[in-house]
Amino acid sequence: MVQADKKPRKSEKPLTFDLNSYLKQQKDLVEKALDRSIAIARPEKIYEAMRYSLLAGGKRLRPILCLATCELTGGDAEMAMPTACALEMIHTMSLIHDDLPAMDNDDFRRGKPTNHKVYGDDIAILAGDGLLAYAFEYVATQTKNVAPENIIRVVACLGHTVGAAGLVGGQVLDLESEGKPDVTAETLSFIHTHKTGALLEASVVSGAILANAPQEDIDRLSKYAQNIGLAFQIIDDILDITATDEQLGKTAGKDLEAQKATYPSLWGLEKSRVKAQELVDSAIAQLSIYGAKAEPLRAVANYIVTRDR
Amino acid sequence: MVQADKKPRKSEKPLTFDLNSYLKQQKDLVEKALDRSIAIARPEKIYEAMRYSLLAGGKRLRPILCLATCELTGGDAEMAMPTACALEMIHTMSLIHDDLPAMDNDDFRRGKPTNHKVYGDDIAILAGDGLLAYAFEYVATQTKNVAPENIIRVVACLGHTVGAAGLVGGQVLDLESEGKPDVTAETLSFIHTHKTGALLEASVVSGAILANAPQEDIDRLSKYAQNIGLAFQIIDDILDITATDEQLGKTAGKDLEAQKATYPSLWGLEKSRVKAQELVDSAIAQLSIYGAKAEPLRAVANYIVTRDR
Repeated sequence: MVQADKKPRKSEKPLTFDLNSYLKQQKDLVEKALDRSIAIARPEKIYEAMRYSLLAGGKRLRPILCLATCELTGGDAEMAMPTACALEMIHTMSLIHDDLPAMDNDDFRRGKPTNHKVYGDDIAILAGDGLLAYAFEYVATQTKNVAPENIIRVVACLGHTVGAAGLVGGQVLDLESEGKPDVTAETLSFIHTHKTGALLEASVVSGAILANAPQEDIDRLSKYAQNIGLAFQIIDDILDITATDEQLGKTAGKDLEAQKATYPSLWGLEKSRVKAQELVDSAIAQLSIYGAKAEPLRAVANYIVTRDR
Repeated sequence: MVQADKKPRKSEKPLTFDLNSYLKQQKDLVEKALDRSIAIARPEKIYEAMRYSLLAGGKRLRPILCLATCELTGGDAEMAMPTACALEMIHTMSLIHDDLPAMDNDDFRRGKPTNHKVYGDDIAILAGDGLLAYAFEYVATQTKNVAPENIIRVVACLGHTVGAAGLVGGQVLDLESEGKPDVTAETLSFIHTHKTGALLEASVVSGAILANAPQEDIDRLSKYAQNIGLAFQIIDDILDITATDEQLGKTAGKDLEAQKATYPSLWGLEKSRVKAQELVDSAIAQLSIYGAKAEPLRAVANYIVTRDR
C-alpha cells in the first residue's frame, strides 16, 4: 500500500537522517499525546497514579516503532497515535505490576520511586488494571481513518500480546525460573520472546495493520521485531551488569542478586554483545526491500545495541 | 430491530415462564462456553490459575443478562456469547484482584479458597491481568455475525466499564472509605454505581449493541440495569449481615468488621429491603414496552431481591 502522491519525508533522505533528532522529535510527539490521553476525574488518586507512571519518561520505543511502521507501510502518524499510546499504557501497566513486592519488588523505575512506593500496593495494582483497560478503550474510541476490521485486529493483537500467551506468560516463567541454576537457553528464550519480544512485535505489527499493509509486509516486519526484541533483551541483561543505577534509572545488578538466568550468564559478556549485533543485522536485512523509507526502523535497530541505558 | 420471522420463544409465553429452569439452562450454556474459552498451554500454572477462578461457579448473572438483552433486542445468543464470556472474565479478574491481601484480603470466594491462597499473590495478580487482556482478545476474535463497528463499540464499553471510570474507580473509593465513620449516601452510591452497577449495565448495553438495537432501547435497558445494579448491591449488603458463610461462599460479616459503610448501616435492614424492592419495580417498569419478550429480564430482576446468596 504505497501512497505515491505523498511529499518526500525526511526518512527518504538517508544521508541526512539524524537518529538522535528523529528519536527526540517522535518521543516529544508521543509524550504530548500521552499527556492528553488521560484527564483527572474522581477519584483523583487513581488517575494521578496512572499518570505518574505513564508520564515518568522512558524511551517510548514501542509507540515510536508503531508510528514508524504505520508510516513505512503507507499510513500516517495520526491513525497510529491512539494505538501508540495504548502500547505505552500496556508497557507501563506491566512495569507497575512487575515492580510490586509480590513480584520483582523494585523500588525505582525510570529514576523515580515505583508506583507502589508512592501510592501503595493496592492503588498500584488498580492503576495497572486501569491502564490496561483504558488501552483498549482508547484504541476503540480514538482511532480515526482506519477500517473497523483493522481496529478489531489491533485489539486482538494487543490482547494476545498482554495475556498469558504474551507478557503475562513470560513473567510467570520468569518468576518460576528465579533462583534455579539449570535454566536452559530455550527457557530463557521463551521468557524474553514473551516478556519483551511480544510487545515490541505487537508495536510493529499493529502499525502495519492500521496502515492496511499486506500480510507479506506484516510477516517481514514481525521478523524485524523478533530480532530487535531479542537484541533489546540481551543488551538489557548486559546493562544490568555494566551500567550504574543512575544510568538505568533502576537498581542495577538485580539479576545477579536474584540469581536470574541471563544471556551474559549463559554466554558471557563478549559473546552476548556479538549475538546482539548479529540480531540487529538480521533485523536490518529484513528492511532492504523498503530502501531509504525504512531509515527510522534501521535507526531504532542500531540504537538498541548502542544505547547505554 | 424486531425480527418478525422468528419462531415463538419460551419467553413469549409468560404464564409458563419458569425462572429457575431458565436461569439453570442459561447458566449451563455459559459454563460450557467458559470451559471452552481457555485452553491450557505453557506455562500451565497461569492458565490453571485463570481457569480455577473463572470456572469456580457463581451466578453468571452478567453473561445471562448479556444474552437475554441481545435476544430481547433482535439478536441471538450465538452473537453475544463471546462478549458474555468476556464479561465473566472481567468480573472474575476484579474478584481475584479485590481479594488480594493488598486489598480486601479475602480467603474464600464462591466457597473455595481465593486465587492467591492457592497460587500465591504474584500468580493471582497475573491471572487477573491475563483474564482482563483475554476478555478483549476473545471479543475481538470470536464475535461472529456482528458489524465490526458494533464490536468496536462493545470493546469501548467494556474498557470504560473496567477502568478508572468504572470498576477500578469504585474499588479505589471503596478502599478510601473503609473505616471512615462519615461516608455519605452519595459516596456510597458512587462506589456501588462504579463497582457493581457499571458491569451489570455494560452486560445489558453490550447485548443490545451486538443486536444493533437503536439508542432508545439502549437507554431504556441502561436504566433497567442501573436499578437492578443498585438493588443487587443493597441485597449484597443485607446478606453480608443476615446470611451464613456457607450460604455466601465467602466470609459473612466482613463489612461490619471492616467498618464499611453499607446501605443497612445507613438506612437499617427494613428500609434497605423496601428500597431494593422499589428499585426492582422501577427496573421492571422500563420493560413494559417489550411485553412478554422481556420475561427473562423481569425474572432476573425479581431474582435479585429474592436470592439468599
